[in-house]
This record gives sequence, C-alpha cells and structure tokens, in this order.
Amino acid sequence: MTRILLLGAGRSASSLIQYLLLHAPAEGWQLTVADVQPAHLAPVLAAHSEYARAVPFDVHDEARLEELVPQADVVISMLPALFHGAVARACVRHRRHLATASYVSEEVRALDAGAQEAGITLLMECGLDPGLDHMSAMRALTDIRARGGQLTSFKSYCGGLLAPEAEGDNPWKYKFTWNPRNVVLAGQSTAKFLDKGHLRFIPYQHLFARTETLAVPGFGEFEGYANRDSLSYRAPYGLENIPTMLRGTLRRPGYCAAWHALVRLGLTDDAVHLDNPATLTWRELVEAYLPTGAGNLAARLAAYLGLEAQGEVMQRLQWLELFTARPVGLANATPAQLLEKLLTEKWALKPHDRDMIVMQHQFEYELEGELHEHTSSLVVLGDDAVHTAMAKTVGLPVGMAVRRLVQGKLTQRGVVIPTQPELYEPILAELEQDYGIRFVEESQPVAARVAAAEK
Amino acid sequence: MTRILLLGAGRSASSLIQYLLLHAPAEGWQLTVADVQPAHLAPVLAAHSEYARAVPFDVHDEARLEELVPQADVVISMLPALFHGAVARACVRHRRHLATASYVSEEVRALDAGAQEAGITLLMECGLDPGLDHMSAMRALTDIRARGGQLTSFKSYCGGLLAPEAEGDNPWKYKFTWNPRNVVLAGQSTAKFLDKGHLRFIPYQHLFARTETLAVPGFGEFEGYANRDSLSYRAPYGLENIPTMLRGTLRRPGYCAAWHALVRLGLTDDAVHLDNPATLTWRELVEAYLPTGAGNLAARLAAYLGLEAQGEVMQRLQWLELFTARPVGLANATPAQLLEKLLTEKWALKPHDRDMIVMQHQFEYELEGELHEHTSSLVVLGDDAVHTAMAKTVGLPVGMAVRRLVQGKLTQRGVVIPTQPELYEPILAELEQDYGIRFVEESQPVAARVAAAEK
Repeated sequence: MTRILLLGAGRSASSLIQYLLLHAPAEGWQLTVADVQPAHLAPVLAAHSEYARAVPFDVHDEARLEELVPQADVVISMLPALFHGAVARACVRHRRHLATASYVSEEVRALDAGAQEAGITLLMECGLDPGLDHMSAMRALTDIRARGGQLTSFKSYCGGLLAPEAEGDNPWKYKFTWNPRNVVLAGQSTAKFLDKGHLRFIPYQHLFARTETLAVPGFGEFEGYANRDSLSYRAPYGLENIPTMLRGTLRRPGYCAAWHALVRLGLTDDAVHLDNPATLTWRELVEAYLPTGAGNLAARLAAYLGLEAQGEVMQRLQWLELFTARPVGLANATPAQLLEKLLTEKWALKPHDRDMIVMQHQFEYELEGELHEHTSSLVVLGDDAVHTAMAKTVGLPVGMAVRRLVQGKLTQRGVVIPTQPELYEPILAELEQDYGIRFVEESQPVAARVAAAEK
Repeated sequence: MTRILLLGAGRSASSLIQYLLLHAPAEGWQLTVADVQPAHLAPVLAAHSEYARAVPFDVHDEARLEELVPQADVVISMLPALFHGAVARACVRHRRHLATASYVSEEVRALDAGAQEAGITLLMECGLDPGLDHMSAMRALTDIRARGGQLTSFKSYCGGLLAPEAEGDNPWKYKFTWNPRNVVLAGQSTAKFLDKGHLRFIPYQHLFARTETLAVPGFGEFEGYANRDSLSYRAPYGLENIPTMLRGTLRRPGYCAAWHALVRLGLTDDAVHLDNPATLTWRELVEAYLPTGAGNLAARLAAYLGLEAQGEVMQRLQWLELFTARPVGLANATPAQLLEKLLTEKWALKPHDRDMIVMQHQFEYELEGELHEHTSSLVVLGDDAVHTAMAKTVGLPVGMAVRRLVQGKLTQRGVVIPTQPELYEPILAELEQDYGIRFVEESQPVAARVAAAEK
C-alpha cells in the first residue's frame, strides 16, 4: 500500500483527483485529499471511500502540515506556488517524495542536496507550463539530435484560451480560465530572449506591440508575446549555444494590440492607489488619464494614443464599457485592481463555455547542409466546466509522474524536472492513448515550405 | 545652556553647521556633531572648540543613539529619511525635541500623540522641498486670503539645477547635485493632480512627455513635470476645494523629451537584472532593446521611437555615448543601475561648478470679480562646492527653525510642519536679510497680462 497525500483540491485539481481515484484500486493507493473545504469533495469521493478520504487543511497551519506529511509516502501539492518552499522542507524533513506542477523556486532549488541525502525526489514542473512543455520539447529535440540535426532556433508558445464556439461575440476572444490577477499584471518585467545570436530585451511598454503571429492546423491564427526570461531555458534543454530562443504566451489576433492600449493608458499599473470612491465611473477614470480637453471621450483617447477612431482596438475598448457611467466598484484601488474587477465580470466563463489549451514549439535545425523546420502543436479542449483543458493538462501529467515515481520507475533523487526520456516518454504515450492529448508533429526542409508558398 | 545634537554631517549639512557655529556663542549653545567620519569635521570645528565637538556615530548603532539623545536638549537629524522613525522614537522616549528636513513619514506621524504627551516638538519638513516651499507658499496664500482673494489654481515647482555658467556644453544642462539614484528613478509612480476641477493621472510612460514650460525672471525658461501626489497638499495648505493643484520638478527645456526617450527605450527600468557582463558595451545594450534590424544603430533607434534623426533628443542621447563601444562597467545590473553609472560620470559636478536652486509658485485667484495671478519665484546660486545652493536652502531653514524652537518661540507640540506664520515669517525674513535668499513676488490681474501680451 502506498499512501498519497494531495494538498489543495482547487479548480485545477479535478482531473488529477479523477486520475488518482481511477488508478488507486489497482495500484494499491490510499489517497488523502487535504483541502480548506473538504466538504465539497464528498460527492467526488463517495464511491471510493475504501481508498480515499478528505481531511481539512489550512495552508497557513504549519503544525497541521507537520502532522499530515509523515502519514504519507508521497505528497502532491496543488497549492499556490508560494507555499511550495514550506511543503518541500517538510517533505525533506520527513523523507517523503513531493510532486508539483510549479516552477523550481530558489527556495526549492536550495533543498536539492538535502533531498538527495534524504533519498527523496522533489519532482517539480510536472504540469502544463511548466511540465508538458518540457516533455514535448525534449522529445522533439532528442529526436532531431538523434538524426544529427543542429538546432538553430527554438520558439515555444502556450496559451490558456477559449474553445472557438465559446469566443462568442467577445472581440477579445478571451475569458479567464486562470488567475485573473496574473493575466492583468502579465509581462510587467522586461522580457529577455535571443534572436539570431542577438540578446533582445522588450520592456513592458513595448511588449504587447512586438508580437509574432503563428498558425495551428485546424484552429487558425494566434499571436504570441514574449515571456519574462527565455534565456533560463537554454541550460535544462542543453541549448547553451542556440542563436534563437524565445518562449511566449498565446492570445487570439488583436488581443495584444488592444491590451497594449490599456498598458499605455496606465490602466494596468498596480503601484499607485487612486484614493477613488467606489462610485467613480469608468468614463471618469479614463478621463483622468487624458490631458485636459473637450469633445467625445473615446475620440480623445483614440487621438491621444494614435489609434484609429473606429478601429479594432477601439472596438475592444468600447466593448469593455470603458467610456460609460459604469461604476468602478472598488474604493481606493490601483488601476490594475479596477481593471481586474471589470474584466472578471466581462471575461467570466459561462457554465457551458469550454476552454482550450494551445501549445506550439517551433524548431529550426541544420541537417546535412540543409535548413529544416519542425513544429509540435497541441490543442486540448475542455470537457466541461469541471474537467477543463487547464485541469486536464495541469493535473494529468502530475498524476502520471507520481504513478511512475511510486512504481519505482523514477530513481533520480533531489530536485527533478521531467526532461529525461524515462519519465516523459511513458507520460506522453499515456496522455495520447488514454486521453487523446496528442502533439501534431510536422517537419520539412525550409526550402520545401518556401517553394510551396511561392506556388 | 542648550545642548544641540546634530546627527549626520554629510554634504547637505555644511551650511547648517556654519549657521549653528555662528549663533552658538550668543545663544549659549553646546553643539555635538555626530557623524560616521568625525575626523573630517576637525578643521571646521577647530576654532569653535569651546562650544562644539564632533563624535563618532554609526547610524545602525541603536545603542549609541540611545546614549547620545538623552545628552541633548534638541536633536537635529540630517540622516537619510529612512532613519527618522528610529530617531524620532528615541526623542519621544527621552523627551527631546527633534528637527529634520524630511517629509513626515507614516512612522513619524504615528508618534504625534506620544510627542504631545512627552511635551516635545517633532519639527519636520523644515528644509527646501519640503520646507521653504511650505513657508513661501503659505506666506503668499495668507496674503491673498487676507485681501479677500479666492484661490482657483496653485502650481508649485522646484528643481536642483546648475548655475547657468556651469551648464557648459552639456546639452542636458543638468548635473547631479543630489542623490543620482533618485534622479534616475524619478516619477516611476503615477502622478496625481487636479486640473480645472478634474482629477488627472499621468503614468510613468507619459510623464516626461506632458510637461509645462515656465519662465523665471532673469534666468530664462524651465520645464516642469508633475510630482507623485499633488493632492495630498490640499489639506495642509487649507485648499480642500481648489480646482487646480499641481506640484512639479524643474529641468531646463529639452531635458524631459530626451529623458522620455530613455524611459521609452527601457533604460530606467530597475526591476530586471540583465545577467550582463561588465564588458557589455552601450551600443550592444541599446541594440538589445531594438527589434532585430540592420543599419546605423542611432538611426534605427530614432526610427523605432519616432524621433527626428538629427534632432535635439538624439543629440542628447549621442552626447551620453549610448551608441559607442564604451563598456557599461557593471555586471548583472538593472538598466537603471547602468544608466546611473553612466550618468554619474557624464553628469559629474566639476570642482568649480556652482549649483542653482529654482522654486516657483504660481497662484490664480478671484478678487472682486476679477481673475488675478501671482508668482513667487526664488533662485539661489551656490557659493562654491561646499556651500552649495542645495546645502544653503536645505540647511539654513532647519537651523533657523531650531533657533526659534530653542528660544521658546515655537510652543506647538507633537508633529509640526512650518505652515504657521509665527514660524515661517521670521525664517523667511532672516533668509532674506542675512543670506539674500529672497522670493520675487509678482502680482497682476490676468487681463493686464493678456493685454500686455497682445501689444
């Protein structure tokens, strides 16, 4: 019998719990789900009471953590990333394995030697992004290298979006399927990447204006803006000398130009508190960001930012009701807090809206004197409002990684991310066979594409 | 005998020490100057050993603070503002008066009741800005109100600049006379002010593009950009219902447009560490901020930011050597740190460069149905590299305020700022009579100015 402790059973844990319950009888697992609201798990766990139970757990209660961790053989944490330092320290102290879908923080990295000494694995970055991105990129890279290819460019994009039918008449073609605050504050640190051997920095004030367009077969076009630090991915992928390296976030075309207008206006600023009443209206707020003037507010804003008065950007701003008497609804807030509140209403998922995850890696490599390109594309649609594409792609890889860890098939100790074939090959195969979560791989010499395009 | 303790004898304390030594014999003061490097004070204090001494003091040594404060009757702190909470708490504990040239922080404000109970005065904001600005503005405001005027607009500007002959061939007409880091990071929080009854916000990305031009008789034109929070000055000045209220910082014309280019490029960002080697050159750094392209670097930057290729902004950037192979000289730094290092070299005061303080208040008011305007302008030139305009205007008002406090002429207890006539009238008079530090007051009906301009 193996005792598995799952910390945190929020929205993104639904598919993971389903996976753990599915395999528990055959694998001989005893599952304890520790959550701040264990009652809501009762219907889910009802038919599985022989091997699954829910217990109360407050993330701020360190004594409770100390009590729960030693009672398990493996801990899975789906808590917000900031708690993973404390959880990982408890795991090292009590010699228990840990798996999460979060980035290796400095705090966790510092536990590497201690974890090795304790003989345990801190298996990090096993969700979607980070997680599936590593697995699928490493599989394609390993294949290219095995064929003798020399990598010259690697761009990787991911986005949590809407299934096409859920986009409706929302001109942003976007709703929140993830933490709204992170979406509002996205990109506020300068992006760093490599382009043809040149280091490139894009500060926030240009980020959403410098996008790239890409296509995913069957799902149309997307645009990507650069993520924070693409350079840090060179070492784990063994791409220390690659000339072009970029990671980005995907949106539907037009989103970034409109978001750029919000950034330029100042509405994503989270540093200043406006001393405003909750009754301040959106048109008054927008007015305050413009130089003193007369005439139609929307027209003045368009002129101030150099936007076409009836263009697509202005249509998206109009759709948000920025020029109406709608109250901002929060007193003494930052502009970013007010924008988050507005967008949480305008970009709310409806009960039947399905989400969609899109990931695409673009590789270029030289092979036998010729330049080739390879694209790995993944699209995952949500089943419903519970088993969203986000919950499936974040949770299933974690569950599958834990299954292999418990089976003794992962013997590496210390801090581990899923870049080794023994771990990612079976997970990618299981995702494809059992869940239809499958990357479409397309490869051709660049010359062939150019010739086809010229026809 | 009154024992005065001066904490901190840095660059900006020179004129204050001179003032205290001048009056010590007649006033019966015993002066103790506590500084981290007391030896450098020996030549200054040598002729005054009967009533002045220097002692060692490390600002991080709280036990030493506890030892020094009870030995004084009044404490003057010229330490960096962040230490004033600890100093003020020691003063309350030991029932000693305190005077500083710094803003009332939340920490100090919280001591108001305790200071009143202890029967002591925490006399804050007694330097230049804050300090002289309050005193001169309150004098003019009180005069306008006494004549029955109704205030409709109050704009107030201050800048630490260069005496005209020290501007030389530096197209920025600026050198550092104050903390370089503060200058590089200036304005990163959204500015808030009131314009004709409308609340106005200017986020950082527009701040240096939305300046106002003003003239100071005999010294030509300046441009002002809006300071952080002009609204917070309404209450202390009794201007709760004024339609226009703005505080700003002065530079010579052209500075702000060129600084705006540095902001837009991303070079004032202090949040991202660039992982750069110290040997990175400025042209490589600038290149990294541009989209990939070919051709002359300066021309590409001009095109990217929409600047005239040979215009004044580009001339200022060229003068900074941004397009040369000059090394940035600091490893793994933020852009703001690199810019500060470059500017510290390019904008260094030479030994004979004199500095200049400029302050101007612009009032508009209604009197007997007519709109009037009143301007109070101050220009102070440095004597030399020790008795700079900055040292005089920051230090002398503090010294004069302490003199009145010790003489028992200031009886208000608790946290006090110099907005009451009993305090500012004699200080402004003494500055004018003994030091020639004098505001030029000009008043006229707006109709008269308009008529004169049309002639």
